[in-house]
Amino acid sequence: MEYLMVIDILGVISFAISGVLSSMKKKMDPFGIFIIAFVASVGGGTLRDILIGFPVAWMRDLTYMYVIMGTSVFAIIFRKKLVYLRKSLFLFDTVGIGLYTVLGIEKGLSADFPPIICIAIGTMTACFGGVIRDILCNEIPLLFRTKEIYATACILGGITYFLLMQFPLSDGVIFTISGAVVIFTRSLAVYFDIRLPSVYFDVDN
Amino acid sequence: MEYLMVIDILGVISFAISGVLSSMKKKMDPFGIFIIAFVASVGGGTLRDILIGFPVAWMRDLTYMYVIMGTSVFAIIFRKKLVYLRKSLFLFDTVGIGLYTVLGIEKGLSADFPPIICIAIGTMTACFGGVIRDILCNEIPLLFRTKEIYATACILGGITYFLLMQFPLSDGVIFTISGAVVIFTRSLAVYFDIRLPSVYFDVDN
Amino acid sequence: MEYLMVIDILGVISFAISGVLSSMKKKMDPFGIFIIAFVASVGGGTLRDILIGFPVAWMRDLTYMYVIMGTSVFAIIFRKKLVYLRKSLFLFDTVGIGLYTVLGIEKGLSADFPPIICIAIGTMTACFGGVIRDILCNEIPLLFRTKEIYATACILGGITYFLLMQFPLSDGVIFTISGAVVIFTRSLAVYFDIRLPSVYFDVDN
Repeated sequence: MEYLMVIDILGVISFAISGVLSSMKKKMDPFGIFIIAFVASVGGGTLRDILIGFPVAWMRDLTYMYVIMGTSVFAIIFRKKLVYLRKSLFLFDTVGIGLYTVLGIEKGLSADFPPIICIAIGTMTACFGGVIRDILCNEIPLLFRTKEIYATACILGGITYFLLMQFPLSDGVIFTISGAVVIFTRSLAVYFDIRLPSVYFDVDN
Repeated sequence: MEYLMVIDILGVISFAISGVLSSMKKKMDPFGIFIIAFVASVGGGTLRDILIGFPVAWMRDLTYMYVIMGTSVFAIIFRKKLVYLRKSLFLFDTVGIGLYTVLGIEKGLSADFPPIICIAIGTMTACFGGVIRDILCNEIPLLFRTKEIYATACILGGITYFLLMQFPLSDGVIFTISGAVVIFTRSLAVYFDIRLPSVYFDVDN
Repeated sequence: MEYLMVIDILGVISFAISGVLSSMKKKMDPFGIFIIAFVASVGGGTLRDILIGFPVAWMRDLTYMYVIMGTSVFAIIFRKKLVYLRKSLFLFDTVGIGLYTVLGIEKGLSADFPPIICIAIGTMTACFGGVIRDILCNEIPLLFRTKEIYATACILGGITYFLLMQFPLSDGVIFTISGAVVIFTRSLAVYFDIRLPSVYFDVDN
């Protein structure tokens, strides 16, 4: 389970940076920035742990708190560099959902849930941190602005995970490919403005 | 406890259809529609199970997931028929809160909570799925648009439940009448535009 | 642990009055007012208990329900007196976050969490009831309108708590001073319009 901790911390860092960037846009002070970074980072994992019935990870292990504090200070100091990365909020948010999708699936598997439930856990927990971040920053959540491709990317990554499990691959290979599927699906969909056909035309009540 | 499962599934179907109708209005793709249907269906029950301390029902029993998938596909295919039912979103939402109110009360009783707490559980869980559905569809929740009569109907249904328990009636009769009280209270209140008197006139700060 | 119950009830009363005042502004009926008062009062404690893994307090002890009912009736009857207290919503909300911050810390300590986690629990649970109240009343939450000083006051009160624990003071003295720090920090900050410097100037993407 060592590498799960590594993915978790990488996800925490990604969402912490996305939280710092969102809150700086809103001209918050350092405390406010830290609070948004904290909630964005641990929101998804908290929902996941409560749903599964695990103890909430960040409450039992101070690593999360220190990583979020360190990341916030780092992101505030190097904010000029971060904004040179165009669409950097998009980047860190996307990496975050990729990592959290896979992590949610692996935590679900460790609690013996069936694949379809693991994918649901992964998708919900990947999306929840970002939704909370956007609500606290008083923005329309990314999830609603680009609805289909956000959660759909998580579901596709989850399906990839369980397809790959049919082959004799190491855990590291499976989670790397599955996480990459989430990240590339969302990135390509946004880049080429790809959307699935919507279903609505004859609803007019 | 067999019939509790039946009520639960009926509630899941009602809220799933309400979720499909809400999300089709927003021109979502099939994945988005399924996600809204899923969250609307299991949101209330998830809150209820977490509050009571039960394992979350849909995570332990795949029936929920399959029913929501099946209902979503059915509702998408037969959407033309559904919209012929005028106010069909209202209809399915109302049936859903009626069923979930009674179900929440019965789950509360099975965990030995006192009547007043059971009514609170029933009301909160009946309302929560719809609130989440509306927030995810970026609409002002029904709960706020017709505030009083939505939750008030659940509370009246709950009071009916415990009044009927004083009489030698079968469980099936009690839950049918109580659920019907929720559904008819809300329907009549909306139809005749009945509201309780509001309390506000001398607050002007 | 007797005095914890007293603080909890005082916090419940403060948030119940804040809920009654918020909902009367929205011209709700008596049922609606009670529901908002209830959710504002128990929202923070419910989140705290679920995070810590305690049974949810108001579901096991009817005192909460009766206190909220009594407070709501009292606040509705004496609403004319309450509104003579200018900024009375601000007052009760601020007393509420002061009490809930300290209570969250003490509950966290009783479950053996480290200080930094206890402060996070106290801050989150102090803020959550008010956020839920404002969302249900369809207002921009106070937390976002005066972002920095709301949660920041809770964090400062929490830091005060653990600093005072280094000295040979009674529990009562520690929680009184720490709660007062929250209340005075927020009151003074609003009165003198003090804000921490914001971090944003070179973010323009």
